[in-house]
Amino acid sequence: MTYKKDLEATGRFLMENDHFLVVNHVNPDGDATGSLLAMGHILQALGKTFILANEGPTPEKFLFIPLSEKIINLSEVELDQIFDRAIALDCGDFPRIGEAARLLSEDVQLLNIDHHPTNDLFGQVNLVRTDACATAEILYDLVKEMGLPLHTSLATALYMGLLTDTGGFRYSNTTAEVMHKAADLLNQGVSPSDVAERCLETITASYLKLLREVLPTLNMDFNDEAAFLTISLEAMEASQANREDMEGLVNYARNIEGVEVGILFKQVDVETVKVSLRSKKHIDVSAIAKALGGGGHAKAAGCTVKGNLDEVTQIVKNRLEQAWGNQ
Amino acid sequence: MTYKKDLEATGRFLMENDHFLVVNHVNPDGDATGSLLAMGHILQALGKTFILANEGPTPEKFLFIPLSEKIINLSEVELDQIFDRAIALDCGDFPRIGEAARLLSEDVQLLNIDHHPTNDLFGQVNLVRTDACATAEILYDLVKEMGLPLHTSLATALYMGLLTDTGGFRYSNTTAEVMHKAADLLNQGVSPSDVAERCLETITASYLKLLREVLPTLNMDFNDEAAFLTISLEAMEASQANREDMEGLVNYARNIEGVEVGILFKQVDVETVKVSLRSKKHIDVSAIAKALGGGGHAKAAGCTVKGNLDEVTQIVKNRLEQAWGNQ
Repeated sequence: MTYKKDLEATGRFLMENDHFLVVNHVNPDGDATGSLLAMGHILQALGKTFILANEGPTPEKFLFIPLSEKIINLSEVELDQIFDRAIALDCGDFPRIGEAARLLSEDVQLLNIDHHPTNDLFGQVNLVRTDACATAEILYDLVKEMGLPLHTSLATALYMGLLTDTGGFRYSNTTAEVMHKAADLLNQGVSPSDVAERCLETITASYLKLLREVLPTLNMDFNDEAAFLTISLEAMEASQANREDMEGLVNYARNIEGVEVGILFKQVDVETVKVSLRSKKHIDVSAIAKALGGGGHAKAAGCTVKGNLDEVTQIVKNRLEQAWGNQ
Repeated sequence: MTYKKDLEATGRFLMENDHFLVVNHVNPDGDATGSLLAMGHILQALGKTFILANEGPTPEKFLFIPLSEKIINLSEVELDQIFDRAIALDCGDFPRIGEAARLLSEDVQLLNIDHHPTNDLFGQVNLVRTDACATAEILYDLVKEMGLPLHTSLATALYMGLLTDTGGFRYSNTTAEVMHKAADLLNQGVSPSDVAERCLETITASYLKLLREVLPTLNMDFNDEAAFLTISLEAMEASQANREDMEGLVNYARNIEGVEVGILFKQVDVETVKVSLRSKKHIDVSAIAKALGGGGHAKAAGCTVKGNLDEVTQIVKNRLEQAWGNQ
């Protein structure tokens, strides 16, 4: 099937059915949440009823668009409905919907809308475009295909998805097409500064505390082309930081002028360390991560290694030395 | 004159003359540098000769586009030419061209291209559009008006201007029109991730050291709606930081969740403190800055106050208390 035919089939699925469970993936990000809200607005425009849900809390910063108040956290709320029509958004495979799975009937008709290259087409209807920058970009195409009006709330939800999944139009998935779509959304009254401020710029006090603990651990090696940061158990305790607070910290190492590889060591417990690796150009950090039981991409990878901080640091540095030698 | 007529007059000025001094403002930023390089490429396409110059060093991170190697730092290089045709880019008034002024003949014909609302039309030919997000946006319009080819180097220079002067498409000057133009530039082979990485994400080791010194000074007041950071003389000394390293530091205070006003106190000497004020929504920080002899906008302002750190902090807090009371 062509993408155009998939869009049409998706439109029919939405038109011909009535009550939907709409879910995104566990620990939702900006695209997952934007897509969930956008689908809510699409179904509302079609006069359908629906439940918006996901497993785990949605970060507060994404909850400023109408319908946000309707998102149900399935880890906290017990739903006593079973659905035979469901929509999975931004999930590369079925298990990514998490606890929502138990709300589906045995003969559920599932619509799968996603942009991950690894998507395994787990739905009865699949709308998957792997070169889209975000699931929200696919929903934009759907809105256009169905001829639905792009009111400000819907446009803002879609813009949030585009903005966050392109890293604020900074990643290589930022295409001319994405920019034209973003422009169209701005024309519907989206405030780019408001969305960027909320989604990309807001920081928490615990994040700042964590950063304060972590920066003094910076050390450089390999002729200052590698930079290392460490989050110890004590730093996590002192800052009361959470998972979200740690996101992006590794970039403080990677982004230093002249640095090729930035690495963050995060102590999980006294004998386990999570390692996040980022590179700029020529070092394939996924090879290092894979050799240590992890995975990822050439420029962003990760692994979890047994050992104390010193031991794991040495193990990773040895691998890094090989990687530099192998170039 | 209309903008269209100004574009035509600018085109004629470039076509009818031959050798130009092209300058931007002292301490050039991304838009100033992008505009300087873009004008170089425009003149090259027209078969003209030119000198690209500015007062003070251009930050290394902006110097990756062809013609960058031709930019002359007038603080270091003595030019023995006098020009009777000159182009000032991104300068709100004539003094902003700095030392370049002494290179102009008495009867110089000066073309002034700029987007600052305060521009006083100091040129013989003026191309000023105050609602443009960047001077580079005006140069984009000029390229289209003149029907010049948008090759990758020219497009990258223009994109650098749009990107940096909109804060990475995050400020309120990010319009649908800007996004459409950015899309067109991407179509000419600009790498959005490469430009963003170089211009927005690269940090220096001295910046990280300064951040490390500054974060522990964070303190909150006014029911945690105001956040304060301090750069002492000792912190500057310890980090060997420069002016650029301080840019944006105040946002670590302002961007904290729930904070309305973020303030950075920067010790200039033992009895002088520079104060940078940022707000999110309802506090007009320009009123505070003005009352203390400074200026700026409602959400971003600054002033320099006599006194030691404690005294100045108290003076500013008193003003802030009034501002909160006056709402």
